[in-house]
Amino acid sequence: MTNGEPQPGPLRHGFGTGRLEAFSDGVFAIAITLLVLDIALPASARGHLLRSLGDLWPTYLAYVASFSTIGATWLGHNAITEYLDRVNPTFVRLNLLLLLVVAFLPFPTHLFADYIGNDTLERIAATFYGVTLLLASTLLMVLWRYAVRKGLVRPDAGDEEIQFLTDRLTPGLVGYLVLILAGLFFPIVAVVEYLAIALYYIIPSRRLTTAIHRKLRPPRGPA
Amino acid sequence: MTNGEPQPGPLRHGFGTGRLEAFSDGVFAIAITLLVLDIALPASARGHLLRSLGDLWPTYLAYVASFSTIGATWLGHNAITEYLDRVNPTFVRLNLLLLLVVAFLPFPTHLFADYIGNDTLERIAATFYGVTLLLASTLLMVLWRYAVRKGLVRPDAGDEEIQFLTDRLTPGLVGYLVLILAGLFFPIVAVVEYLAIALYYIIPSRRLTTAIHRKLRPPRGPA
Amino acid sequence: MTNGEPQPGPLRHGFGTGRLEAFSDGVFAIAITLLVLDIALPASARGHLLRSLGDLWPTYLAYVASFSTIGATWLGHNAITEYLDRVNPTFVRLNLLLLLVVAFLPFPTHLFADYIGNDTLERIAATFYGVTLLLASTLLMVLWRYAVRKGLVRPDAGDEEIQFLTDRLTPGLVGYLVLILAGLFFPIVAVVEYLAIALYYIIPSRRLTTAIHRKLRPPRGPA
Amino acid sequence: MTNGEPQPGPLRHGFGTGRLEAFSDGVFAIAITLLVLDIALPASARGHLLRSLGDLWPTYLAYVASFSTIGATWLGHNAITEYLDRVNPTFVRLNLLLLLVVAFLPFPTHLFADYIGNDTLERIAATFYGVTLLLASTLLMVLWRYAVRKGLVRPDAGDEEIQFLTDRLTPGLVGYLVLILAGLFFPIVAVVEYLAIALYYIIPSRRLTTAIHRKLRPPRGPA
Repeated sequence: MTNGEPQPGPLRHGFGTGRLEAFSDGVFAIAITLLVLDIALPASARGHLLRSLGDLWPTYLAYVASFSTIGATWLGHNAITEYLDRVNPTFVRLNLLLLLVVAFLPFPTHLFADYIGNDTLERIAATFYGVTLLLASTLLMVLWRYAVRKGLVRPDAGDEEIQFLTDRLTPGLVGYLVLILAGLFFPIVAVVEYLAIALYYIIPSRRLTTAIHRKLRPPRGPA
Repeated sequence: MTNGEPQPGPLRHGFGTGRLEAFSDGVFAIAITLLVLDIALPASARGHLLRSLGDLWPTYLAYVASFSTIGATWLGHNAITEYLDRVNPTFVRLNLLLLLVVAFLPFPTHLFADYIGNDTLERIAATFYGVTLLLASTLLMVLWRYAVRKGLVRPDAGDEEIQFLTDRLTPGLVGYLVLILAGLFFPIVAVVEYLAIALYYIIPSRRLTTAIHRKLRPPRGPA
Repeated sequence: MTNGEPQPGPLRHGFGTGRLEAFSDGVFAIAITLLVLDIALPASARGHLLRSLGDLWPTYLAYVASFSTIGATWLGHNAITEYLDRVNPTFVRLNLLLLLVVAFLPFPTHLFADYIGNDTLERIAATFYGVTLLLASTLLMVLWRYAVRKGLVRPDAGDEEIQFLTDRLTPGLVGYLVLILAGLFFPIVAVVEYLAIALYYIIPSRRLTTAIHRKLRPPRGPA
Repeated sequence: MTNGEPQPGPLRHGFGTGRLEAFSDGVFAIAITLLVLDIALPASARGHLLRSLGDLWPTYLAYVASFSTIGATWLGHNAITEYLDRVNPTFVRLNLLLLLVVAFLPFPTHLFADYIGNDTLERIAATFYGVTLLLASTLLMVLWRYAVRKGLVRPDAGDEEIQFLTDRLTPGLVGYLVLILAGLFFPIVAVVEYLAIALYYIIPSRRLTTAIHRKLRPPRGPA
């Protein structure tokens, strides 16, 4: 900001990243909070509250898995926009597509929680759920690769960091594909692993952030 | 920002564009995310999950059409505020009117998804849906024309760009009018085309943005 | 920012107005968008869609009245924070109380739409609705008067403007009191007038804004 | 900002506090506003509206208690981020965990309101509710202690202030533990006291803020 070097200044509004982030944050925050509306006791619960609360465990599992997935997607979205100063119309459109899938997630979550325990149907529900997660994950990947290819990434980002983020976003795709197949046979296991993938995305991002911190913060003496 | 030319400085809060955008982004984000609540399996779905999920296609269609329409309206709103430094009370009021229609959209979406397949009723539902879309589109147009007429547009915006945005916001109105009539006879077709209009608004905004970029970014040597 | 004159600098986060406004905007935006969830056709609508859509007019009326009221409250909140650089813990608490009432508004709205047409019950529903509106209006007034009394208003705000905003927030209280009584006898009329009060708050704020503009913008030559 | 002293500059986006706060504010605002959806009259209310509205008092109580708790948690979150310039990945993860519990709160709120009056079940519901509150309170505490231990707190924060915030976040934990036990015997009393704890957090934060104000604002002559 203080040096006079010519750099692509973000637009004040519009296709700068500001309002894109605000709108995306809104959709992420709402989708993640709407998930709780899917948690409800069946009408037959009266009289057996404690057992009914326990029987809801697939619902809690789906809640935590979807919450973690949306949280992980938000973190990934965050990591991507961290590297961008501006976006172009195609990026905005791809971003809307990602948000469409994220906002849709409460439906397959609800479905899975509803049909678990039903031998045949839980397989369909788990597959439907997995396909939605795969779509979200793919679109996040596409968003990042598109930004890299179109030169939207800020010039001061190192090649190593860019590669690191690319590597980090890729394995999930393979993981989801394997789990969707697994979900046809062991639905519950698949959903537990969907949760595991989300946690994988959430947890070890330390290395990435360290890289970002090292890059962006100017060298300085002992604070 | 760096030159000393007298220009209408945005107010810190209030009737500057900041909180107007934040509030509008909130309503857009919530309305677009609430759409998923309309997607639900009928109680009769138990036992035929796969077919039931397939039978929901009008619901998915309505979801995607409404999502795209709200997304396109948000993009248009973005393009408009991009040109404004400040707003006046009438603009704020018109903006509230636009948000009223946007926030209302989940209801006709739900209605259309519910009544599709019912020969007579789907016509009414599709018309009701189209009229709401027409209203949203008209209000967006009115918002822009009002800002232009009242001189709210920032002085550094070129006449050509202003005209371009005006031209871009207009054809939708005619399109919606034609489709509302068509919807009386071919409801599904009309909704598919509502989706097409939304996509038209979303997709080729490249030219507009290029124009904005060229205008706002200062000339500079090779980066 | 550029001059060295001592002025109460806003805190970076926390009890500066930034996050208070962001959180309040969120609650206003969500409450105003949740209103649409109350609009639903009765199960008996099948077969008489057009008439049923027409019969929903009290619901539309309640939707527009509540939307306008929340919109007007947001505008008033905006006008208040416009004058503040910082807030104190009591202000934050009062603000939470105001948001509690605003977030509650969808319930009495729903109630009114449900019971209209029922001779006895609509009176109770309209009264309940009116009392909630009165509470919201009173709390907005209290918020402003508190800020004025505690010296939270920025020093460059003129006495005349402060008085003007006070005068503007007051008559609604009397209006609501009268209408709550009227609602006991003519419920529909009362709700129409609740809408009128909201529109009164929304519409003629021009004078106020003009005053703000005149005050805050530095004098300059012809633009 | 104007002095050249080396200080940990916040990242532009990402793991700076900006988007973390925006996303958290979104979840807090949505969870607090969704609470109203749990307020509904039973189908049997028709004909006894006034009495039914009165009979809803446990629902109102649960609404106010949950609203106050989320409001208090938001205030605490605010106080914490007030002291931070940057966060690390673990902090972001802990923050997501806190939001998961906050977003979950509407479910136990709904449960409590549903089962009050049922001698056995209200005890389970009140305990479930209390455990969720305890979790939220504990996670807020953990978030703060983690930030202190990892040196995320800005260097200009005094030890006394840090200790003050630690002291302030602790007693709630003990309080919740005692009340969860009490709730097994006197469910209503427990919920009233949950409300009291929330109000305790909301109300006397004056001393803390005064401390913050004193610290952050530069000394100056009479304004």
